[in-house]
Amino acid sequence: MMFPFSKTPNPEVFLLGKLPNKGKESLPIYMGEVGPVWLYPQAPLDCVVADPKKGSKMYGLKSYIEYQVTPNTTNRAVNHRYKHFDWLYERLLEKFGSAVPIPCLPDKQITGRFDDEFIKMRMERLQGWMSRMCRHPVVCESEVFQLFINYKDERDWKVGKRKAEKDEIMGPMIFFTIEPEAPDLEPIEVEQKCEMYSRFTKTMDDGVKDLLNVGNLHWKRCTGPLQKEYQKIGKAFQNLSSVFTTSGYTGESTLTEALTATGRTYEEIAEIVASQPKQDLHFLLETNNEYKGLLGCFPDTLGVHKAAIEKWKEADRLVAMNKISPQDKVTMAKRLSVMSYSLQAEMNHFHSNRIYDYNRVMRLYLEQQVTFYETIAEKLRQALSQYQEL
Amino acid sequence: MMFPFSKTPNPEVFLLGKLPNKGKESLPIYMGEVGPVWLYPQAPLDCVVADPKKGSKMYGLKSYIEYQVTPNTTNRAVNHRYKHFDWLYERLLEKFGSAVPIPCLPDKQITGRFDDEFIKMRMERLQGWMSRMCRHPVVCESEVFQLFINYKDERDWKVGKRKAEKDEIMGPMIFFTIEPEAPDLEPIEVEQKCEMYSRFTKTMDDGVKDLLNVGNLHWKRCTGPLQKEYQKIGKAFQNLSSVFTTSGYTGESTLTEALTATGRTYEEIAEIVASQPKQDLHFLLETNNEYKGLLGCFPDTLGVHKAAIEKWKEADRLVAMNKISPQDKVTMAKRLSVMSYSLQAEMNHFHSNRIYDYNRVMRLYLEQQVTFYETIAEKLRQALSQYQEL
Repeated sequence: MMFPFSKTPNPEVFLLGKLPNKGKESLPIYMGEVGPVWLYPQAPLDCVVADPKKGSKMYGLKSYIEYQVTPNTTNRAVNHRYKHFDWLYERLLEKFGSAVPIPCLPDKQITGRFDDEFIKMRMERLQGWMSRMCRHPVVCESEVFQLFINYKDERDWKVGKRKAEKDEIMGPMIFFTIEPEAPDLEPIEVEQKCEMYSRFTKTMDDGVKDLLNVGNLHWKRCTGPLQKEYQKIGKAFQNLSSVFTTSGYTGESTLTEALTATGRTYEEIAEIVASQPKQDLHFLLETNNEYKGLLGCFPDTLGVHKAAIEKWKEADRLVAMNKISPQDKVTMAKRLSVMSYSLQAEMNHFHSNRIYDYNRVMRLYLEQQVTFYETIAEKLRQALSQYQEL
Repeated sequence: MMFPFSKTPNPEVFLLGKLPNKGKESLPIYMGEVGPVWLYPQAPLDCVVADPKKGSKMYGLKSYIEYQVTPNTTNRAVNHRYKHFDWLYERLLEKFGSAVPIPCLPDKQITGRFDDEFIKMRMERLQGWMSRMCRHPVVCESEVFQLFINYKDERDWKVGKRKAEKDEIMGPMIFFTIEPEAPDLEPIEVEQKCEMYSRFTKTMDDGVKDLLNVGNLHWKRCTGPLQKEYQKIGKAFQNLSSVFTTSGYTGESTLTEALTATGRTYEEIAEIVASQPKQDLHFLLETNNEYKGLLGCFPDTLGVHKAAIEKWKEADRLVAMNKISPQDKVTMAKRLSVMSYSLQAEMNHFHSNRIYDYNRVMRLYLEQQVTFYETIAEKLRQALSQYQEL
């Protein structure tokens, strides 16, 4: 579990707060086939994160890795260091975190930062993170995100940064910008939905972790004992073959050559078995890792909604104590409904992405697994063809 | 290592002994393409060992298992208990053991003798032993072996048994019946060949044991941790699928059904992996087990030859001490040559059987392995087809 919020943002600023000057910021919610949905951009945004380059500052005293980020909209690359991604993450979390679970960035790492393997892995994960952010209709159209991928020059970036850091529409205030095109929901319904989402994300988190454990164990078996065992089988056949060549018996060569080929085939199988996880299990585990991270952010986002529901439950008491007016209570119910539409749109976004991601990664996994078993079958068929027919 | 001989039979009875009345017993050796060879029968003999039946004696006080032995020559079944096989083994060992390594019978077992699995395994191994004896040109044509597979009735069997037990042409005497159709060999050549065979059978014994160890470990992995791991992978997919069905999101069913099918497929793979060794490794291990047994008999047979060579090396001293005549020394050299032809014919028989057996079992093993990997690939291809195309 990760807790990016130091404490649950207080939803009171929205439930009982005054409508701020939100400028032209507006997040409409429509009723789609699956229920409430965000407004999706016409053309899907995506970015390529590539070409990590070592840069340096202060006459080489400080060095860092810079990645090229190229959005499909402009096809123009901008450079960003990990710490810029981290800055973006912080802004997105502050601004949208009460409505949208913002997944953590891939881990920071102090040692081995310039190790090729590490850079490749970090880039792959930054790519995954960027793609997910690009696919999010709220995030991708936000000013701060557009700045990150489209800034013109150093000055543009610096000005944009300062502006984003001063943004006042953040935390639960974001719900002021949400405009559902649907009738208000009863608080009881709001609570039921929130509980359902909470249960779902919790059980999915368990399921994902289970798959990660099983997958990691399998990976270790493939690259460890299983590889060694196939090597041993290969050696045993080749060993028998060398013994046979010493028989001095004529007409031995077909068998000894076939046995040697079989032995080599099992040694090749050992290598295929050991390198296979990189071809398939890797992607399955990466996707599940990403979801583990994402699911780890839900308790925070859902926490804001739960706190709002608890606040609503106090409303009668607060009215009785004259702490809020009966009109305030009506407003609270309306605003709770807005929050619920926001949450529903977000969950529907999550579900549709989840179905897409799991469908894609399972296809990839199974395609590679089929190829894996077929490759081995073909290699063994070739080894078999060397033996004398009966 | 097994030591069926309590001590190495003394080859002196042949080297310096008097030609006994050997009746019509004669074992010719011809020069074939591969060197000296036994005379092979025109039609190969084989027996089917089948249909184990529980019999009883003394009004049911003693019970036993009786197997049907049906030779392809008569197609008429005779019944034999394990102890009859054991009697035959003892006769063959006594009579031919100095010239032909007679493989031990499958182990005796006291407990669980009537267990179906045990009976099946013993029958399979008795079948292997009988087939090997049937294929041996010296053994298969011997009177005692023919009695075993062809006896007409109880009386015939009893009379034959008594006669076999009184056979005087046994131990190194058997070499009197061997008639090589080739010029005498120099003792130095005899020794070199004997040493080569000794080295070969020793290194092959090591190679076979190595393969047996590796194979047994692989068997345990397939039926143990590997099966469990595929079951766990299957469960993890199915588990994720059940979580997904609780999402309440429309358009979930294609993915959840596909994931469930994938999970079931991995559970099926677990079963295939666990039952596969019985389909292929079993036969590979059985053949190597048989060879381990056979190779374990070589030290005894080769021991008789080595003792004869040692005896020859003493010949000059014995002549000097007047213990043997110069003519005896000439006879010894001639008889050593006969023994060597016998050993060469036997080794050539061993090699040709070995090539046949290993070619056959490796084909069977690889064919089954190919089917195994193809079956899994096909099952995964079916699972894959359930996902939404990209």
